[in-house]
Amino acid sequence: MALEYDSLNENVKKCQYAVRGELYLRASELQKEGKKVVALCQAPFLLDNPNVGMLFPADAIARAKHYLSLTSGGLGAYSDSRGLPGVRKEVAEFIERRDGYPSDPELIFLTDGASKGVMQILNCVIRGAGDGILVPVPQYPLYSATISLLGGSLVPYYLDESENWGLDVNNLRQSVAQARSQGISVRAMVIINPGNPTGQCLSEANLREILRFCYNEKLVLLGDEVYQQNIYQDERPFISSKKVLMDMGSPFSKEVQLVSFHTVSKGYWGECGQRGGYFEMTNFPPRVVEEIYKVASIALSPNVSAQIFMGLMVNPPKPGDISYDQFTRESKGILESLRRRAKIMTDGFNSCKNVVCNFTEGAMYSFPQILLPPGALQAAKQAGKVPDVFYCLKLLEAAGISTVPGSGFGQKEGVFHLRTTILPAEEEMPEIMDSFKKFNDAFMTQYDNNFGYSRM
Amino acid sequence: MALEYDSLNENVKKCQYAVRGELYLRASELQKEGKKVVALCQAPFLLDNPNVGMLFPADAIARAKHYLSLTSGGLGAYSDSRGLPGVRKEVAEFIERRDGYPSDPELIFLTDGASKGVMQILNCVIRGAGDGILVPVPQYPLYSATISLLGGSLVPYYLDESENWGLDVNNLRQSVAQARSQGISVRAMVIINPGNPTGQCLSEANLREILRFCYNEKLVLLGDEVYQQNIYQDERPFISSKKVLMDMGSPFSKEVQLVSFHTVSKGYWGECGQRGGYFEMTNFPPRVVEEIYKVASIALSPNVSAQIFMGLMVNPPKPGDISYDQFTRESKGILESLRRRAKIMTDGFNSCKNVVCNFTEGAMYSFPQILLPPGALQAAKQAGKVPDVFYCLKLLEAAGISTVPGSGFGQKEGVFHLRTTILPAEEEMPEIMDSFKKFNDAFMTQYDNNFGYSRM
Ligand SMILES: Cc1ncc(COP(=O)(O)O)c(C=O)c1O
Ligand SMILES: Cc1ncc(COP(=O)(O)O)c(C=O)c1O
Repeated sequence: MALEYDSLNENVKKCQYAVRGELYLRASELQKEGKKVVALCQAPFLLDNPNVGMLFPADAIARAKHYLSLTSGGLGAYSDSRGLPGVRKEVAEFIERRDGYPSDPELIFLTDGASKGVMQILNCVIRGAGDGILVPVPQYPLYSATISLLGGSLVPYYLDESENWGLDVNNLRQSVAQARSQGISVRAMVIINPGNPTGQCLSEANLREILRFCYNEKLVLLGDEVYQQNIYQDERPFISSKKVLMDMGSPFSKEVQLVSFHTVSKGYWGECGQRGGYFEMTNFPPRVVEEIYKVASIALSPNVSAQIFMGLMVNPPKPGDISYDQFTRESKGILESLRRRAKIMTDGFNSCKNVVCNFTEGAMYSFPQILLPPGALQAAKQAGKVPDVFYCLKLLEAAGISTVPGSGFGQKEGVFHLRTTILPAEEEMPEIMDSFKKFNDAFMTQYDNNFGYSRM
Repeated sequence: MALEYDSLNENVKKCQYAVRGELYLRASELQKEGKKVVALCQAPFLLDNPNVGMLFPADAIARAKHYLSLTSGGLGAYSDSRGLPGVRKEVAEFIERRDGYPSDPELIFLTDGASKGVMQILNCVIRGAGDGILVPVPQYPLYSATISLLGGSLVPYYLDESENWGLDVNNLRQSVAQARSQGISVRAMVIINPGNPTGQCLSEANLREILRFCYNEKLVLLGDEVYQQNIYQDERPFISSKKVLMDMGSPFSKEVQLVSFHTVSKGYWGECGQRGGYFEMTNFPPRVVEEIYKVASIALSPNVSAQIFMGLMVNPPKPGDISYDQFTRESKGILESLRRRAKIMTDGFNSCKNVVCNFTEGAMYSFPQILLPPGALQAAKQAGKVPDVFYCLKLLEAAGISTVPGSGFGQKEGVFHLRTTILPAEEEMPEIMDSFKKFNDAFMTQYDNNFGYSRM
């Protein structure tokens, strides 16, 4: 046989992918309007049907016409490989409104989800095992898997659990020094803000330190900002890396290379299955942008319907629009509910035996630490399982609660976590946390005792 | 700066991508029904609206409900990374009906267009510059670009223009021998059937030779069959590589590794912007399939709306269905019109001075050879252009006809072509060929004379 396991590309084998984010938010009225717009773009001849107004409101019809006018021949034709120019312009305007600085549509590429964008950029950076990418630990496994697939080196930096998963620039320095001592040239740094799985939000001061570090060390900063709409505390509203960089002024704003990623999969939209994302490049030489464009064109174009979702996402109703009040009410409603769910979850975890959990400041996850007693470690070993996998399997069996073991994201040695989303319906949350507590406390008692007995 | 042109991944720079297939077919009534189905899937709450029947026929409503039932939470949720199981089952049934052999949904992966599928498979095969992939010349540049991006070696085999772009297995042997003498281990072979840009259809006998060759040489066969519905002659109906392989029986049918690709971008659908495709794997060990699944999961899932288009494409109306007659009439109409257009085009090219053109047997392209007189070669050199680029630019300037120079696809040295689609509206075709002829014949006269003068 020509392609046996042994003759597979080694990088394909080496990469690990532990987690699939299954997220689904119920459609709000405004999402419904967005979906109507895309439905009309899919079947534009409906616009000529005299009955169209019986199913589609005037607003949706107008927006569908607008987005169709940005395509060349509807959703059935390939778009520019960077995405429809008209949608890229709307993304640039969104970024300008958000940050207060100009944004150039020519430096924005639309992608089939943020994942594909991250993969494209890492593909350009990584030339071989000598190229290192700084990645937070714990991290979202897109990064470790892609770096491994591309044959690069992952250079970990640890987030500080005792400081609410904050980022300490001294840790970064150590990581870089250690990588260099191994002959690795560190080329880029990833931040996930707000964090997945850790849920922390970076402060402006912290972002400034990071950007200064990238400037000094000549690193490309990859800013994964897909959770920028998901913030559950008032102390630190989301600030984009781009804004902080521009605020810092010259020489930083002119030299630090930044790629920022966003998606339609999160935020108020949660349109995961559409596969829509974008990245914006800052301070890249035109020749490099050209090369990235060329590589994007191999796969012809990102899917067009998700490009329209992106247009809709970056164009929420503005003050004065008919639907502005509804939008404000609904998006506030979604956020407040998520915030309450985050609180029920954190408090629930912290009420459990041997569980400690930081508050979810942003994103969609809770990442409690599970202090496993020696008896549990022993039992896991006997079962041939990693300890946190052992715990999560027992949790699934006993309570029907599905979580992802922390080892899929990376964690300090001997420390164990699980990750769960804060997305279960708010009214079901207390009950879920009750059955978690019941399972956990029994588990801890069992293995504490077991250990006791086996030591005797 | 961290990422300058000089520090880009060299494979990113090396790859070339010359062409973007801009295809767009006007929607037939059946495509319209398909689009209505996907529109309803995008906005499923419309199904609860009492007025839905005023815009959507009962058939479309029923199919939308069917496809929604195959999703987990509509189009807004990630699907399995291989695509929705229900749609993969429908693809398997389509393949079974087409070939008369069983097909396993677990060996079918849905992708964001065939392009992404080809890239995934080549990524698994290519370990480095020592791994060679046999690719036809002329070829569709997805292959050259991807092999270059992945750092593998393209091993060309030439199609025989004087034999209607046929494939001669002796050429293959030579290509493999030459590659081996350079230390390259040839791992896989690409066929494009029907061909892009060459438009030929492979005969069953030819496919059998190819499969036997792959068996002997232990090559994975990548069968790009995206144009399988686009056939314009009666001598050779499309036969899939899978069917020929199964017909050959043991040991071939049990051992030759085959990956077949298909798409919603071509055929009667032409839904390029949706980005929907699939590949089917034959004779791959389960561990290899697992690895391909793992890598697919890094990008989470292919876009879900194109998966539904794929379901619709592989489920055309069957005899007895209400819309069967209409479907048969319409798809026959589209094909017959394309066949007439292919004929007008080939005849038009062959009536021109210094132009020879094979008939387009399948796919969507015409690929005439342009015999450029020495005067034109000289003028191109003076202008600093590749000769066929020079010719195509003049054609665009003088006649407003946009074509792709043959050098984007590969051609024998000193031989020049252009590629054009056969998709312009049938009624406009004669006029287009007239203005082509006017331009070409004047061009040939000018440069024949020029050369004459400059030689004196
Ligand atoms: C941190 C982070 N980045 C990127 C992504 C990719 O999102 P998508 O490819 O759906 O845009 C995810 C998805 O869960 C994520 O959590
Ligand atoms: C021969 C061939 N293969 C593959 C493709 C890719 O098609 P898609 O990615 O749109 O499915 C094309 C597109 O033109 C093609 O011509």
